[in-house]
Amino acid sequence: MTRLYNDPARFRDDMVDGFVAAYDRYVRRVPGASGVLRAAGPVPGKVSVIVGGGSGHYPAFCGLVGPGFADGAVIGDIFTSPSAEQAYLVGKALDGGAGVLFSYGNYNGDVMNFGLAQSRLRGEGIDCRTVVVTDDIASASADIVEQRRGIAGDFCVFKAAGAAADRGEPIAEVERIARKANDRTRTLGAAFAGCTFPGRSEPLFTVDPAEMELGLGIHGEPGVATTERLTATELAELLVERLLVERPADADGRAGVILNGLGSTKYEELFVVWKAVADRLAAAGIEVTSPEVGELVTSLDMAGCSLTLHWLDDELAELWDAPADTPAFRRGDVSGMAPRGVAPSREATGVVSADQSSNPDQHSRPVAASAASQRLARTVRSCLDAMLATVTEHERYLGDIDAVAGDGDHGRGMLRGLRAACRAAHDSDRAGAGGALRAAGDALADNGGGSSGVLWGAMLRAVGDGIGDTDVPLPQAVAAALRAGADTIAELGGAKVGDKTLLDALVPFVEGLERDVAAGTGLADAWRRAAAEATASAENTSQLRPNIGRARPLAEKSIGTPDPGAVSLALCATAVGVVLTEDCGGEQ
Amino acid sequence: MTRLYNDPARFRDDMVDGFVAAYDRYVRRVPGASGVLRAAGPVPGKVSVIVGGGSGHYPAFCGLVGPGFADGAVIGDIFTSPSAEQAYLVGKALDGGAGVLFSYGNYNGDVMNFGLAQSRLRGEGIDCRTVVVTDDIASASADIVEQRRGIAGDFCVFKAAGAAADRGEPIAEVERIARKANDRTRTLGAAFAGCTFPGRSEPLFTVDPAEMELGLGIHGEPGVATTERLTATELAELLVERLLVERPADADGRAGVILNGLGSTKYEELFVVWKAVADRLAAAGIEVTSPEVGELVTSLDMAGCSLTLHWLDDELAELWDAPADTPAFRRGDVSGMAPRGVAPSREATGVVSADQSSNPDQHSRPVAASAASQRLARTVRSCLDAMLATVTEHERYLGDIDAVAGDGDHGRGMLRGLRAACRAAHDSDRAGAGGALRAAGDALADNGGGSSGVLWGAMLRAVGDGIGDTDVPLPQAVAAALRAGADTIAELGGAKVGDKTLLDALVPFVEGLERDVAAGTGLADAWRRAAAEATASAENTSQLRPNIGRARPLAEKSIGTPDPGAVSLALCATAVGVVLTEDCGGEQ
Repeated sequence: MTRLYNDPARFRDDMVDGFVAAYDRYVRRVPGASGVLRAAGPVPGKVSVIVGGGSGHYPAFCGLVGPGFADGAVIGDIFTSPSAEQAYLVGKALDGGAGVLFSYGNYNGDVMNFGLAQSRLRGEGIDCRTVVVTDDIASASADIVEQRRGIAGDFCVFKAAGAAADRGEPIAEVERIARKANDRTRTLGAAFAGCTFPGRSEPLFTVDPAEMELGLGIHGEPGVATTERLTATELAELLVERLLVERPADADGRAGVILNGLGSTKYEELFVVWKAVADRLAAAGIEVTSPEVGELVTSLDMAGCSLTLHWLDDELAELWDAPADTPAFRRGDVSGMAPRGVAPSREATGVVSADQSSNPDQHSRPVAASAASQRLARTVRSCLDAMLATVTEHERYLGDIDAVAGDGDHGRGMLRGLRAACRAAHDSDRAGAGGALRAAGDALADNGGGSSGVLWGAMLRAVGDGIGDTDVPLPQAVAAALRAGADTIAELGGAKVGDKTLLDALVPFVEGLERDVAAGTGLADAWRRAAAEATASAENTSQLRPNIGRARPLAEKSIGTPDPGAVSLALCATAVGVVLTEDCGGEQ
Repeated sequence: MTRLYNDPARFRDDMVDGFVAAYDRYVRRVPGASGVLRAAGPVPGKVSVIVGGGSGHYPAFCGLVGPGFADGAVIGDIFTSPSAEQAYLVGKALDGGAGVLFSYGNYNGDVMNFGLAQSRLRGEGIDCRTVVVTDDIASASADIVEQRRGIAGDFCVFKAAGAAADRGEPIAEVERIARKANDRTRTLGAAFAGCTFPGRSEPLFTVDPAEMELGLGIHGEPGVATTERLTATELAELLVERLLVERPADADGRAGVILNGLGSTKYEELFVVWKAVADRLAAAGIEVTSPEVGELVTSLDMAGCSLTLHWLDDELAELWDAPADTPAFRRGDVSGMAPRGVAPSREATGVVSADQSSNPDQHSRPVAASAASQRLARTVRSCLDAMLATVTEHERYLGDIDAVAGDGDHGRGMLRGLRAACRAAHDSDRAGAGGALRAAGDALADNGGGSSGVLWGAMLRAVGDGIGDTDVPLPQAVAAALRAGADTIAELGGAKVGDKTLLDALVPFVEGLERDVAAGTGLADAWRRAAAEATASAENTSQLRPNIGRARPLAEKSIGTPDPGAVSLALCATAVGVVLTEDCGGEQ
């Protein structure tokens, strides 16, 4: 379990401070952002490879920043995507004029946040591309590879891209190579015990000592199947056998290989497994190149390991063996390896200062508001305060139900996001109702982290746009603004009702609100009734996979635990209903 | 806990096989020995730095073999000293003609085994020196520094010695530098949870979640004091403050610093602590050079961390920052670093083949024996079998009482040693009684590991010498042989009766035996009575410090748990008494 921290809410920031303090010979902070870049700064004329995601995976991702590897890393909270704003700031700071490649594991939150950042960077003329890592063969079948998660294979894809960029390849080549590296990288893992968040006393999942979980995730997710515990050799055979099934048709038998420890499965055990892995690979005629046995993509103190095969051809072999020099990983002779670009010797300090266009407050600047809308903004602030209060009260419960199939941070993330949202709304004291909602949304997106942060942030902004800063809207206009918020979420998340997301509560809520206000019901009454419907819908959602203390086979998919996103939406809607009743009574 | 293994008894061998398979670009095996050396082999004319000790500490010790660091490592079982034979074989294989430096942490078993190997190497004309690491300030007070344990400071001493040897320093200089590095290296650690041996289900110790142990050992020993749990910053302050008390008088303020994770206290937590460590060191005017934050000297999956200050002057600063390239640690530009010696380019393969003089069987060669002594050897074998049977029966108990103040491996080590002893005695089928005992002793020393292995091995060999291979000895001669065995142990281990060692049972046993056979009692009867006295004495030994589930202050020193070495001696004596009664009856 994680035992060393100060304030758990500041864990990520404290960690980044310490990391930069320890390794300032390698890295420095991106000004104003939760990210790091190489100490020498971006090289003009060279593509920058930016990796990232939540923290808790060290040396992934910030420990892999340095010559021959990544140019920078965006650092989210534990197991939580960094915000779009953070990814944008790091991308902006690292653009050396030749383009930026984002690469990260395939998780909804990262895809949304890095995707938004990419759009924004492209809008500013920066050639930003993305290669998402999908190496985990347990997470989806081979015919839907694009739905697979990224786990330890991150390391192989990042290394290929970083080495290609450092030898001066243009952005299209770096992107092609990273995509090819991902297409030729496969991982499978097994878990024995879950990790424990800072400030929590229980692990995210537990495993019966006689069993193990096959197909782990790196965010404290258990496996996709529970099997009996195996010996080291049996596990090695199983991992090799299943990975060889997906050997690419054109693989010539060369492979870079990683046997990765998740955190508390230690080196000596990994070496015992490695012996059997090496024997089995040799028996299969595989030629192993520069294997790594150790901790490269961890999951806090989770117990488990994963095996990655990175199928090499001449091009990938050169990149796999290319020198690299980062805080946590070094390979080969780095002495002559000045990264190539237009002007490698240029002092780059100026480049990394966040310029005006990347001011984090840009979205939150107040809009001239009418006195009526300024008064309405007070109600908006009360509503946000009530949302914060109810999420505070239910944080633990939200975390617990999130841990059933996710990483257990939903309550914590919502709390952090709503705290920032309330602060931003209260700070924008001359804003109208729309401006206060937009400020709150941007703050929530930037601080909530993960997919919930970006979705809630976008929803509040959309609702704010709908409410505006001039008039006090009629109930129908409020309902329309909420509908716009729900549409934004559906578009951004690519989900629909029934997918066990917050839409399962939000859409019934919006539909109920529209129906009742259309029938002439006052806003407060309609809202309360709609919130009750949302609550009922949220309670009826049921996540797909159990994991706590489970000894059940995978076939038993539905366990009756509601989706945490739907539940927090319903809680917030209910809390707002109370405020509206108090503040507005029947007046609207 | 350790979950990945095949046969726990073969864990070390499987681990070394896997390590060498993974990193054959760095290391290869020392032929016929449990040890590794650099892939390029020893360099003629260059001092070889050999590190080692038990395994379970990766990257210490074998992960630190490579240019700029160690030349080789001797690898014992988990938390168990390698045997003198193993240390000798590795030293012999690595001698490049310029001498060999042994360096290891200060533990009885290592001191005895490496010490015996040093004597043997010196006897063969090899200039072998030793520098024992004593960095742990919690393990003994500053006025008895030589009694302190070696923990993460191993890394600093090994690095200084390795870098000095690689730049071509003669053995006297390498020894001086290693000693100076040790004199200027101090470590203090804290533990939160114990590690679990392969094949065991319970950790070596547990800690109340509200508490922590200050002053950990790296063999699963808890701390020397139990204190309340601290925040990351409070712990950093405590560690820095106590280490600064021992700042050497001539330190100019420069320090290499290691914040070391023991196994399951992960990198993110270490960075949070590091921030506070760096702040406190800066406030104290300390200039930190190339700090390392990570896992450098682990203790399986133990939870905890330690802080090491390595006080630099110009000489040590150069060595600390010197390039190194090993499986687990790389620093700086290693491209031009061909280790200097008389003929660096010489193909060294031949050098590492164990030559005839290092045949592991040399001590065990049979001596021409009389028919009577050959018959008596059968009784010797029965006695050894009975010892094995009783230790097998009590293995768990011996492990449990050893875990109270030690590393819990006494039962396992005795079992492994006695199995080998029985095998060797049965294999030497034409030997006399003395030859069978000597063969058993050598096998026990080479396989039992730790200090028990070397002490029991030396005792059996001494008893064998006393019994001889010609006559059937009178009871007085048997007692005299046992007395010689006890004397050998006292000399080798530097202990006396009352020190809570096996001598507390062995000496009463020998005294009882001498007294009764002098009075004319038959051997079997005298032996049984002496064994009963040994058992009573063993039960009266009481170790000094408790650790299992303890919430008691350090002041409470005695806990009534008997010393495992004394108990196993008494168990063996009792079992032999039964055999003697059956085989010899009253005939002698």
